[in-house]
Amino acid sequence: MTHGPRFPDLIARLPATVPFVGPEEQERASGHVLRARLGANESVFGPSPKAIAALQAADQEIWKYADPSHFELKTELSKRLGCGHGNIVFGEGIDGCLGYLVRLLVEPGDAVVTSDGAYPTFSYHVNAYGGVLHKVPYRDDAEDIAALFAKAAEVDAKIVYLANPDNPMGSWIDGATIEAALDDLPEGTVLALDEAYIEFAPEGTAPKIDPEDPRVIRFRTFSKAYGMAGARVGYAFGAEPLIKAFDKIRNHFSMNRSAQQAALAALLDDAWLAEVRGRVNSARERIAAIAEANGLTTLPSATNFVAVDCGGDGPHARAVLEGLARHGVFVRMPFVAPQNRCIRISAGTEADLDILAEELPKALAEARETVA
Amino acid sequence: MTHGPRFPDLIARLPATVPFVGPEEQERASGHVLRARLGANESVFGPSPKAIAALQAADQEIWKYADPSHFELKTELSKRLGCGHGNIVFGEGIDGCLGYLVRLLVEPGDAVVTSDGAYPTFSYHVNAYGGVLHKVPYRDDAEDIAALFAKAAEVDAKIVYLANPDNPMGSWIDGATIEAALDDLPEGTVLALDEAYIEFAPEGTAPKIDPEDPRVIRFRTFSKAYGMAGARVGYAFGAEPLIKAFDKIRNHFSMNRSAQQAALAALLDDAWLAEVRGRVNSARERIAAIAEANGLTTLPSATNFVAVDCGGDGPHARAVLEGLARHGVFVRMPFVAPQNRCIRISAGTEADLDILAEELPKALAEARETVA
Repeated sequence: MTHGPRFPDLIARLPATVPFVGPEEQERASGHVLRARLGANESVFGPSPKAIAALQAADQEIWKYADPSHFELKTELSKRLGCGHGNIVFGEGIDGCLGYLVRLLVEPGDAVVTSDGAYPTFSYHVNAYGGVLHKVPYRDDAEDIAALFAKAAEVDAKIVYLANPDNPMGSWIDGATIEAALDDLPEGTVLALDEAYIEFAPEGTAPKIDPEDPRVIRFRTFSKAYGMAGARVGYAFGAEPLIKAFDKIRNHFSMNRSAQQAALAALLDDAWLAEVRGRVNSARERIAAIAEANGLTTLPSATNFVAVDCGGDGPHARAVLEGLARHGVFVRMPFVAPQNRCIRISAGTEADLDILAEELPKALAEARETVA
Repeated sequence: MTHGPRFPDLIARLPATVPFVGPEEQERASGHVLRARLGANESVFGPSPKAIAALQAADQEIWKYADPSHFELKTELSKRLGCGHGNIVFGEGIDGCLGYLVRLLVEPGDAVVTSDGAYPTFSYHVNAYGGVLHKVPYRDDAEDIAALFAKAAEVDAKIVYLANPDNPMGSWIDGATIEAALDDLPEGTVLALDEAYIEFAPEGTAPKIDPEDPRVIRFRTFSKAYGMAGARVGYAFGAEPLIKAFDKIRNHFSMNRSAQQAALAALLDDAWLAEVRGRVNSARERIAAIAEANGLTTLPSATNFVAVDCGGDGPHARAVLEGLARHGVFVRMPFVAPQNRCIRISAGTEADLDILAEELPKALAEARETVA
C-alpha cells in the first residue's frame, strides 16, 4: 500500500473528465469573447427588481448563516402549492435536489430510467452513485412517457426521470396525460418530475397531483423564470416520507442567505413573472423569425429557449454552434441523434437577438463550407 | 410492494431527527428573541467592505450561473497557497467539501477516526455514507493527534479528522507538531485537516505541508475570519489526484455567483483581515473578563470564540446556556464530558458583549437554583 487516498471501485471507475464546461471556460479556452449569452437558458431579463432589492438589503447580513429550515420561504411556497412545510425541501438548485434524490434511493446496481438525450446532470448523479441507467429514445422530439414507464416496469426502476417541459427540445406533455399515465407507473418506482421550465408552459401543463401522492416528486427552481440562476435556489416537493428523508443526508447549511431572501421576494412578485413570460414569448417569436429568415425551422417551445433545426445532421449543427461561438454567440445543442440536428437558443434581449440575427447567417455559411 | 420510494437499508436506518437547529428555529420554538447572536462562531464584524461592495455589484448579474471552475478565485488563492488550480476545489462551505471527501473515500463499513465531541457535521456525513466512526477522547481539552493516528492505524481508517484550531474548545496544536506526527499517519489513511479558524490562530499553527503531499487534505472557509458565513464558500486543497476526484461527483453549479466574487474581494483585503483579528482578540479578552467577574474561568482560544468553564458538570452548563437563551443570548456548548462543563461564546461586538455581561449573572443564578 502507498500513502494517500484509497478510492472505492465505484469512484475510481467514474470518468475523470469534467462534464460541465461553462461559457467562461469556453471563452478562456478559445479566446473568443461571448457577446450574447444564449446557451444556458438563463433569464437574461433578470429577476424581479424586488428580488434585487432584497439581495442588496440582505448583503449587509452575509456574516450570518441562513436559516437551515428555510421557514419563511416554505411558508409562502406551501400556500402556493397547497401543501405543508414537510412537503418541501430546498437544495442547491434542482441539480442539488436531484443529487440528493438519487442518493436517497439508488444503490450500486439499481435501475434508473431516463430519456436518451435528456438532462445530463440527472444521469451524472445516477452514474456517480453507481445506478444503472436505462435510456428510452425521444419520440417526435418529445419525451415518451409511455415508453419511459414501460421501461421502468421492465427493469424495476427505482426512479424514472421526466422533464416537463423538456430540455433540450422545449417540447411538453399535457398535465392530464401525465395524470393518466401515473396508473401505469410501476409500484416501487418514483417519478422524478423536473418542472424547471413550468412557468413558461401553457396552462394545464403542470399535472394536478396530490402533494402526498407517494409516487411522484417534483422539482422547481428560481434559476429560470425567476431569473436567479446565480443564486442557487431549487426545491423539491412531494410526499412527506420522501421529502423528510432529505434531512437525513442534505447539507443543511448549503444555501446562501441573501439568495433565500431574494427568492421570497421573487416569489411574491407575480407581476414580474408575467412580464418575463411576455418577454420570453416575444423572444421565442423573434428567434423563430431569425431562423426562418435563414431558411431554418424551429420547434414549438414551452420554455425560455427554442430548438432550431439546422437542416442537417449532428455534425452540421455542431459546426453551426461552433461558428456562432467564434462570432461571439454562446448556444448549446442536444447530444443525441436525431435531436442533435438542432441547436438550442435561449430567449435573449433585443440586443442579444440582434447579434444572433447578424451572426447566424455567417455561422451557417461557414458550416455549409466546412461540411461541403 | 406498495407505491412509493424504496429506501436502501443504509438510508432507512439513518436517524430522522434534524441534527442542525439554527437560531431562527430556536426563536420560533421558544418565542424568545435572540438579541446577541454568539452561538455559531459567525463573524459579527462582517466581511471586508470591499466584499460587500462586490456583492452589491454582482447582484445585478444574479441571472447568470457562476463559473463552475471558479477560475478567478483559484488564481488568487493558488498564489497565496503556493499551489496550482488543480490543487484546489470549492464547495458549499467546508460542510459541503467534507461531505464530498467522505463520499469519495468511504464505503459502508469503512473505518473513520475523529475525536469524541469534535465537529458533528463531519460525523454526520460519515454516518450518512455508512462509514464506521471510531472516536478518541480529547486530552486536556485538545484533540489528541497521537491517539487519533494510533487509532487510525488500529482500525485501518480511510480518513482521520483533525480540526486545528479545534471547535468547540478553541485549543490548537503547533504546526510543527502536526508535521512531525505525519510520520505516524498510517498508509492509506488521509488526514482531513479542518482549518476553518486558522486565520485567528498564532503564527506557526498552520503546518508546512507540500500541497502535493498525498497524505493530507486541508479545508478552509470564507465563513469565519472572512465574515461570509451566509455566502457558503469553502474550499479544500491538497494533492491533485484527490482534489481532481471531487470533479467526478460534486455539484458543479452549486456556488452562488455573487458570493464567489465577494470571496475574491475578501481574499484581497488583507488589511480587513488584520482588523478583524484585532477585534476578535479584544472580544476574547472581554469574554474572559466577563467570565472572571462571574467567578468563571475561560480556556485559551486560537479561534473567534471562547470556551467558558461554567464550574460544574454538563447539566449545569446546559442550564446556563438555556438561561442565556431565555435572556436573549444565543450560545452553544460541547456535547461530551468533561468538555460539556463549558459553554462556547463567539466573539461579539461591544454591544453584544454588553448584553452578555448583563445576562450571564442572571443565567448563572438561575442555573444554580435549578440544580440546587
